[in-house]
Amino acid sequence: MNLEIVSQSFAFGGDVLKYQHQSSYTKTPMNLSIFLPSGRPQIVLLWLSGLTCTEDNFMTKAGAQSFASDNGIVLICPDTSPRGTDLPGEHDSWDLGSGAGFYVDATEEPWKKHYQMYSYITTEIPELIKELHLDHVPLSISGHSMGGHGALVLGLKNPQLFKSISAFAPIVNPSAVPWGQKAFKAYLGSDQATWQDYDASLLVEKSEYRGPILIDQGTKDDFLETQLQPHELEKNCPNGISVELRHQENYDHSYYFISSFIEDHLKFHLESMNR
Amino acid sequence: MNLEIVSQSFAFGGDVLKYQHQSSYTKTPMNLSIFLPSGRPQIVLLWLSGLTCTEDNFMTKAGAQSFASDNGIVLICPDTSPRGTDLPGEHDSWDLGSGAGFYVDATEEPWKKHYQMYSYITTEIPELIKELHLDHVPLSISGHSMGGHGALVLGLKNPQLFKSISAFAPIVNPSAVPWGQKAFKAYLGSDQATWQDYDASLLVEKSEYRGPILIDQGTKDDFLETQLQPHELEKNCPNGISVELRHQENYDHSYYFISSFIEDHLKFHLESMNR
Repeated sequence: MNLEIVSQSFAFGGDVLKYQHQSSYTKTPMNLSIFLPSGRPQIVLLWLSGLTCTEDNFMTKAGAQSFASDNGIVLICPDTSPRGTDLPGEHDSWDLGSGAGFYVDATEEPWKKHYQMYSYITTEIPELIKELHLDHVPLSISGHSMGGHGALVLGLKNPQLFKSISAFAPIVNPSAVPWGQKAFKAYLGSDQATWQDYDASLLVEKSEYRGPILIDQGTKDDFLETQLQPHELEKNCPNGISVELRHQENYDHSYYFISSFIEDHLKFHLESMNR
Repeated sequence: MNLEIVSQSFAFGGDVLKYQHQSSYTKTPMNLSIFLPSGRPQIVLLWLSGLTCTEDNFMTKAGAQSFASDNGIVLICPDTSPRGTDLPGEHDSWDLGSGAGFYVDATEEPWKKHYQMYSYITTEIPELIKELHLDHVPLSISGHSMGGHGALVLGLKNPQLFKSISAFAPIVNPSAVPWGQKAFKAYLGSDQATWQDYDASLLVEKSEYRGPILIDQGTKDDFLETQLQPHELEKNCPNGISVELRHQENYDHSYYFISSFIEDHLKFHLESMNR
């Protein structure tokens, strides 16, 4: 893997590095932002961002570096879609195409050549982690909104890879809500049987994941009823999976909400490793 | 003052409010972002942002709300220039015109009608503070880069208004560096005598301010030698003013730097009030 450093900053005694590399799955250059704490890494947290976001949003707005640096947490933030392509309709709406890869492997035209975000994240990011000599460190996953969907789906489908899962305001049942239906129809086609493989509320019943799941959801989130519906995951959960769904009074869908509870999530992932 | 709420979020138990109001100084609608902690306000911190910034940058990227909420610190973040006008050359470069008001009252065409940021901040923001029933709370000032220049100049010129001053990577001697010279020539004209009134390194010798000043400067800041030169302020400081200039190894000019030390600045302002 040919990793090129695009930019580098220093934060709380650690390094914020933006890398670019050529992805063999998306067949495009992909950016990702990484925080390396000063001390010995205890865990690696893979963060998946939401609609319209890039590799930057979490790193600049979540306020995670202070606790991460003090506790040896590596943060890895990939982009949310391929970039630099110009497919038909790719840049027409904020909930499909660029910035909206939905963490699936597209099977439909015009998306399938580049929109292979599921394989990109689950295959190429671990290679990158190996290249950074962090493959011996426990890996956990989290994300927000579309990225919360990504964290749940990738976590539930890859229990050997991820030791703990958390999410902020995730889309838990994309097959049943407008954002997910629009994206899945475009990327996966009209046969809804293919959608089940990327729907956390359906996957959770048959997943072999046995770790904990923490979900935070703001009660004043404008998308709560129409797009997110976190109770759908909770109600389908088998006994073997422990889901803690917290309703946070007055919080909305923004990074102000994420920043207010990110430390809880970092602690949750750290503690999950030590069980 | 007719304050309209543009948006509202919840963070760390407090409120992030974006207001818009018609300014009688800039003669434009002005935005500002305010954080109100949940508990009783102990101090109000006025934050002035740098080149290209708006009222959002500090609020979304500095990670100040956690400590501010726990310690009763109100944060007020104005925009960095008038908006919505279309003066000749106003949007042509990032270091002059929109996003680059430099906290002066312009005397030259085409700027003087709207670019009255000094009076806007020192007169209209205190009116707003009164409207929010916070005028009994001690007021301090801080800022970054161009906003660090603003914080120093406004603080040194208004010791009755501001109880403590701090800055991140401030332009301390704008008359002598390219950013300041370009802006001052445009806004104030070619007579450099008029520039002295907005130059912290010159103002500090005759200021009646007797509070403390804290300055943080990253050693890997690309603008350190060409634009910032914080030692120029330190060397002109009379005995009555205590300046602590800290050189932070490896830090650059970004908000990663600010977020790493904002808690120190908030503590500094809190402690200054209690002396």
